[in-house]
Amino acid sequence: MPKSERIPENAGRFAYEGLERVLHEKARLGIMTSLVAHPDGLLFNDLKELCALTDGNLSRHLKVLQDASLVEVWKGFKNKRPQTLCRVTADGRNRFLDYVSVLEQVIADAAEAARAPAAARRSRNLLGGWSPA
Amino acid sequence: MPKSERIPENAGRFAYEGLERVLHEKARLGIMTSLVAHPDGLLFNDLKELCALTDGNLSRHLKVLQDASLVEVWKGFKNKRPQTLCRVTADGRNRFLDYVSVLEQVIADAAEAARAPAAARRSRNLLGGWSPA
Repeated sequence: MPKSERIPENAGRFAYEGLERVLHEKARLGIMTSLVAHPDGLLFNDLKELCALTDGNLSRHLKVLQDASLVEVWKGFKNKRPQTLCRVTADGRNRFLDYVSVLEQVIADAAEAARAPAAARRSRNLLGGWSPA
Repeated sequence: MPKSERIPENAGRFAYEGLERVLHEKARLGIMTSLVAHPDGLLFNDLKELCALTDGNLSRHLKVLQDASLVEVWKGFKNKRPQTLCRVTADGRNRFLDYVSVLEQVIADAAEAARAPAAARRSRNLLGGWSPA
């Protein structure tokens, strides 16, 4: 690493504390994006299709999001058939947008990291007593 | 939702299949970003500080990344003291950059989703037989 970079000053630089675990899960990320895009709510079956989830998986993840007050779930009827409507809460929308701003930082860091020359690494042999762990 | 939007055509739109699970974990995301930024490798203790992880957690996550061929771990000596050096593999760098490009899609989707008017949702009461689940 460049001599100018001092690790202690960068302690926790890549800890990403803001990546709230309840949101940082692949399926729940898709569910929340879908619901924020549809502020009037989505029917269970439509949400299931958008996120390519099974009934069981969607139910399980909705329960986690509901327990965290990110999503609300309503039961009702549409065309005389029982339906489940899922909506993001006001708090859920705000927390999701906060989460996304941390993701933006991850991407900015990754873009900067990717500018480090990969080729230089491959040409450097680990001599001097290093051996695979 | 707007009448023009048809869910079946958007099936799987928010599934984010490319979010490889081994990389989509908060701590491992930090580890990979750190290592891609430091292609010559990082000593265990420096990596631990950058990611604000304990010895045990860093070891556990490195094992997962090593088993997935994303990271290589070397043992050696520096200033006569035993050291562990961690480096991203060429494959690991490529897979991480692929993963980041999916994250970019998530952010683009979220930014578009956030343009849906939140206020409209709050003013709409769920009448007509809907009740909390």
